[in-house]
Amino acid sequence: MTVRFGVLGAGRIGKVHAKAVSGDAHARLVAVADAFPAAAQAIADSYGCEVRTIEAIEAADDIDAVVICTPTDTHADLIERFARAGKAIFCEKPIDLDVGRVRDCLKTVAETDGKLMVGFNRRFDPHFMAVRQAIEDGRIGDVEMVTIISRDPGAPPVDYIKRSGGIFRDMTIHDFDMARFLLGEEPTIVTAHAAVLVDPEIGTAGDYDSVSVILETASGKQAIISNSRRATYGYDQRIEVHGSKGVVSAENQRAVSIEIANGEGYTRPPLHDFFMTRYTQAYANEIASFISAIETGTPITPSGADGLAALALAEAALRSVKEKRQIAVEL
Amino acid sequence: MTVRFGVLGAGRIGKVHAKAVSGDAHARLVAVADAFPAAAQAIADSYGCEVRTIEAIEAADDIDAVVICTPTDTHADLIERFARAGKAIFCEKPIDLDVGRVRDCLKTVAETDGKLMVGFNRRFDPHFMAVRQAIEDGRIGDVEMVTIISRDPGAPPVDYIKRSGGIFRDMTIHDFDMARFLLGEEPTIVTAHAAVLVDPEIGTAGDYDSVSVILETASGKQAIISNSRRATYGYDQRIEVHGSKGVVSAENQRAVSIEIANGEGYTRPPLHDFFMTRYTQAYANEIASFISAIETGTPITPSGADGLAALALAEAALRSVKEKRQIAVEL
Amino acid sequence: MTVRFGVLGAGRIGKVHAKAVSGDAHARLVAVADAFPAAAQAIADSYGCEVRTIEAIEAADDIDAVVICTPTDTHADLIERFARAGKAIFCEKPIDLDVGRVRDCLKTVAETDGKLMVGFNRRFDPHFMAVRQAIEDGRIGDVEMVTIISRDPGAPPVDYIKRSGGIFRDMTIHDFDMARFLLGEEPTIVTAHAAVLVDPEIGTAGDYDSVSVILETASGKQAIISNSRRATYGYDQRIEVHGSKGVVSAENQRAVSIEIANGEGYTRPPLHDFFMTRYTQAYANEIASFISAIETGTPITPSGADGLAALALAEAALRSVKEKRQIAVEL
Amino acid sequence: MTVRFGVLGAGRIGKVHAKAVSGDAHARLVAVADAFPAAAQAIADSYGCEVRTIEAIEAADDIDAVVICTPTDTHADLIERFARAGKAIFCEKPIDLDVGRVRDCLKTVAETDGKLMVGFNRRFDPHFMAVRQAIEDGRIGDVEMVTIISRDPGAPPVDYIKRSGGIFRDMTIHDFDMARFLLGEEPTIVTAHAAVLVDPEIGTAGDYDSVSVILETASGKQAIISNSRRATYGYDQRIEVHGSKGVVSAENQRAVSIEIANGEGYTRPPLHDFFMTRYTQAYANEIASFISAIETGTPITPSGADGLAALALAEAALRSVKEKRQIAVEL
Repeated sequence: MTVRFGVLGAGRIGKVHAKAVSGDAHARLVAVADAFPAAAQAIADSYGCEVRTIEAIEAADDIDAVVICTPTDTHADLIERFARAGKAIFCEKPIDLDVGRVRDCLKTVAETDGKLMVGFNRRFDPHFMAVRQAIEDGRIGDVEMVTIISRDPGAPPVDYIKRSGGIFRDMTIHDFDMARFLLGEEPTIVTAHAAVLVDPEIGTAGDYDSVSVILETASGKQAIISNSRRATYGYDQRIEVHGSKGVVSAENQRAVSIEIANGEGYTRPPLHDFFMTRYTQAYANEIASFISAIETGTPITPSGADGLAALALAEAALRSVKEKRQIAVEL
Repeated sequence: MTVRFGVLGAGRIGKVHAKAVSGDAHARLVAVADAFPAAAQAIADSYGCEVRTIEAIEAADDIDAVVICTPTDTHADLIERFARAGKAIFCEKPIDLDVGRVRDCLKTVAETDGKLMVGFNRRFDPHFMAVRQAIEDGRIGDVEMVTIISRDPGAPPVDYIKRSGGIFRDMTIHDFDMARFLLGEEPTIVTAHAAVLVDPEIGTAGDYDSVSVILETASGKQAIISNSRRATYGYDQRIEVHGSKGVVSAENQRAVSIEIANGEGYTRPPLHDFFMTRYTQAYANEIASFISAIETGTPITPSGADGLAALALAEAALRSVKEKRQIAVEL
Repeated sequence: MTVRFGVLGAGRIGKVHAKAVSGDAHARLVAVADAFPAAAQAIADSYGCEVRTIEAIEAADDIDAVVICTPTDTHADLIERFARAGKAIFCEKPIDLDVGRVRDCLKTVAETDGKLMVGFNRRFDPHFMAVRQAIEDGRIGDVEMVTIISRDPGAPPVDYIKRSGGIFRDMTIHDFDMARFLLGEEPTIVTAHAAVLVDPEIGTAGDYDSVSVILETASGKQAIISNSRRATYGYDQRIEVHGSKGVVSAENQRAVSIEIANGEGYTRPPLHDFFMTRYTQAYANEIASFISAIETGTPITPSGADGLAALALAEAALRSVKEKRQIAVEL
Repeated sequence: MTVRFGVLGAGRIGKVHAKAVSGDAHARLVAVADAFPAAAQAIADSYGCEVRTIEAIEAADDIDAVVICTPTDTHADLIERFARAGKAIFCEKPIDLDVGRVRDCLKTVAETDGKLMVGFNRRFDPHFMAVRQAIEDGRIGDVEMVTIISRDPGAPPVDYIKRSGGIFRDMTIHDFDMARFLLGEEPTIVTAHAAVLVDPEIGTAGDYDSVSVILETASGKQAIISNSRRATYGYDQRIEVHGSKGVVSAENQRAVSIEIANGEGYTRPPLHDFFMTRYTQAYANEIASFISAIETGTPITPSGADGLAALALAEAALRSVKEKRQIAVEL
């Protein structure tokens, strides 16, 4: 079986997915749509597919699945439309910035018996997958404490930040998903601290750039998350899971691993400086997993419910900062 | 000048300090006291000093300084007595489990113009000193986020735990001191989460064994602390300080650093399994710093006020757990 | 410009190159040839190209370049035929097992003004490229000592070994090329020691499985090479270059970089277990470099002369072992 | 039992051993001798022992053992004298620069039934001991290939070099001993290459500063040694042993292990810059082993024969360079 794809949105992340689909032996890229025809055409030229409108893709008989890479505020609507159209849906995170809207959208997906995968790409990073596998294999016993340190090389433009829903919904949301992926039990309490240490403009835009979060589960397992919109040394992405029998961690990744030593010391190059090069393999694995789930009819993970849960944690974290107190959550 | 010492308490840590004093070219071990004469005699035999009573050391003309290694509940009284006796005082942490008692004790020290150093040995670990030095040298710019992961190889006996004042006053207190040492600004808010994940007996004793803490300063700098009374792989002691220009971290230490590789992978030995071997150099540096401060008349650090501040953070953390809310502190 | 390719030989390494050509935006895979039509057809199916005979490719107007992945004993003949046919040639190493035959072949290439690249893929490994770049950037000053440790996860079948020309021509040849790539000066003396420590059958076949080599240049720079046909922990490929100002080294690579710690210690997974996964990026970079050299008309490296030089060093090493003495070489 | 010591020679290394003896609970430092009385007095003052002449120590009833730290050209004579005087002898390497003289000296030791330990301190480094232990524990199976990289932070003064016997007898000798310690089988062939790359004055003095050596045993095991009198990044001391089941290696050591990351990369401090700080623990372990062997009457290792064997390998290496050929040795 070959899964036939339409890609909606021909921006940066759309290109990543178009390439992943094209390169997958079990898939075929049929069409791409974008509000800017030139952007769609560029993808079409590179990968030998057609440019179509969203409506045409929605109505197409020769398309089984879509990848939604359009702006966030269109995600929920498109999910609903394509769920009704019977297409399998891969949607970039987040489904929406509003928990209520997400719930409504997922209701439609459920009613239409839709297939929906949400783009938490980090679950498909080979190193993080291996961490999870080590846990499942019992290598560290019962999970007790999760530590996630996640720092971006630099802050996005303030314009982006204004539309992003804030650092918890835009950046920490990946870590919330990762914490859930690793804890093996839902968080029930969220405490967050946040500050503007990197760029005052971010504060002026109503957001934060440096945050610390503790998640606690019903049985007392704890996850701590440390985020910064600044990391001079590259894209810092570390996870560590401490359990009753040991600890497992994933090291940071760099494009080139040499070491130069002289009188100043021993120096290795900075880390990857961009999420796309850091997570190249993760993006490919992610789409392959989506295709495989469609082919085999197995449940799709991460699901819409996973998207909702991470968003709910983000909302709780924001409330924790605003109200200066712990927030109970029920996922 | 040679600083002449009496050591009070001939237990495990008393021996460490007696050895450090004996081996220091600027100091001489004159006498040791202990409620168990045999313990004192053992030290006297090893290092060629006298056994005396605490009273005799208090009154002695040939002793300039004392090292207090007796049980915690005697610390404050002994500090007051020896401050009045005009001896320089090194006291193992904590001064007392009660903040009020510590305040009173420090008042006496101040009134007698006493010299008091509190035993936060980790400040003298060569690696942690180098981290602090890197900050002072401007290598990472302004400090923004501190991460401290501190796990003991195993929990102490429950009997000890019952007298310990709880994990925050007994174990995390070192991390509170380290956070203050590194943040460069006093914490003003403490949030803590705590659970019993390692040993239910610890819970029965009214304590916790797994805790997560966030400290926040007035300007928004944040420190996160992760503690566990369990670490199957040795004594886990890591610090990391993230700043505007970079990050500095101290690696874990092991007694033997070889690596064996085979079909199972690449394996390095576990870490030090005991705080005394992990911090051998720190203990020696600590006493040397105390001696040097006496000789040169320079201020002693960490001071009684540092001991008080760390204890106040520990109390706040405990209240945060009990009252499930953030606690404001004024140090 | 698009470089149009034929691939000769549809075995393991032929597939690697067919994929690399297909995935390169500046190239197009037109045809593939193999003595076993089914093998050729499999590649044709995967990448949408034609199956043709070698003769047809030789005569084709729509093919600019060929990749020679056929058995070693056909390399020199095919190079000569395709040089005369005016195609650019990428040939897997070695050109031939006999230095005299290689010299003749390169003479034909020169006479026909042919373009020939020899497949020393390791020069294109990102990490080794970065080592070379560090040298060129003056980061370690003048090169003095090169250390190459290269161990295979396991020995190839004895049948292969019998046809391989022996460990020096088959395995160490890569390290001879790497030493030349890094030394910046031609070796003039070769000393080699060799033994059978891994598998007596290898000895019965007249070969060795464990060798140590020293190369020395006219100015006294030295390279040492350590080879084994056994490495239980994966594909061990390390280089280190020591110079007047410092040292640069390339670390081993593993597919997954997690670390698990418990009472046994800290364990990272084994290395890549196969040269194709270890050098995936190198193979892609290699073909891209070949394509780029064709497009831009710049000299092709590594050239036929590089292939000859490495083979001459291999022959000298073998003579050194056989004759138990140092061998002078003139490259 | 307490072993009573005299130390002969109060220079740099004499101080190291005087301190080690003083700090050992099973030993007592009784006397020290030196041609310069002031040097001897300094040690006497530091450790509370007497200054005596060598003759007085030779004749003394209250001295059981001596540590010979005088200039190399006095070693053999002193060993003979103190062997005849019935003292246990620890002698710094080498016994003599001349193999014939060493043989004669060892004959005297044998005739007098003397106890002699030669100061190959590296055998007592905790990390190298752990490597050897791993081999003995069967962790890597049968030893096949040993790799030793040993580089000094800088060349000694040319005056020293002139008296040193040359790099093989002065520096590589440690590596020859280490190779024997790890190979588990005597080398039978030595090949060495040597050059002057660091300092032309060293060449003028008739010595080399950059050498590569291969040792081969009868069964084909191989050790490679790479030496340089230069290492801008500190005292580089690495060993690796490859066996049939795996590989074991000892990492380099640094005084402070922090890491600073910024846009330039991840930097750890240089290594120890001096053999005395690098091998502090080794020196203490070495004397403790000597004392223990005297106390328990067990054989002393490394013995005079070990000293002779390493020297014989050094001579063979020098001959290999001079005669440009492999040299057979019989140890």
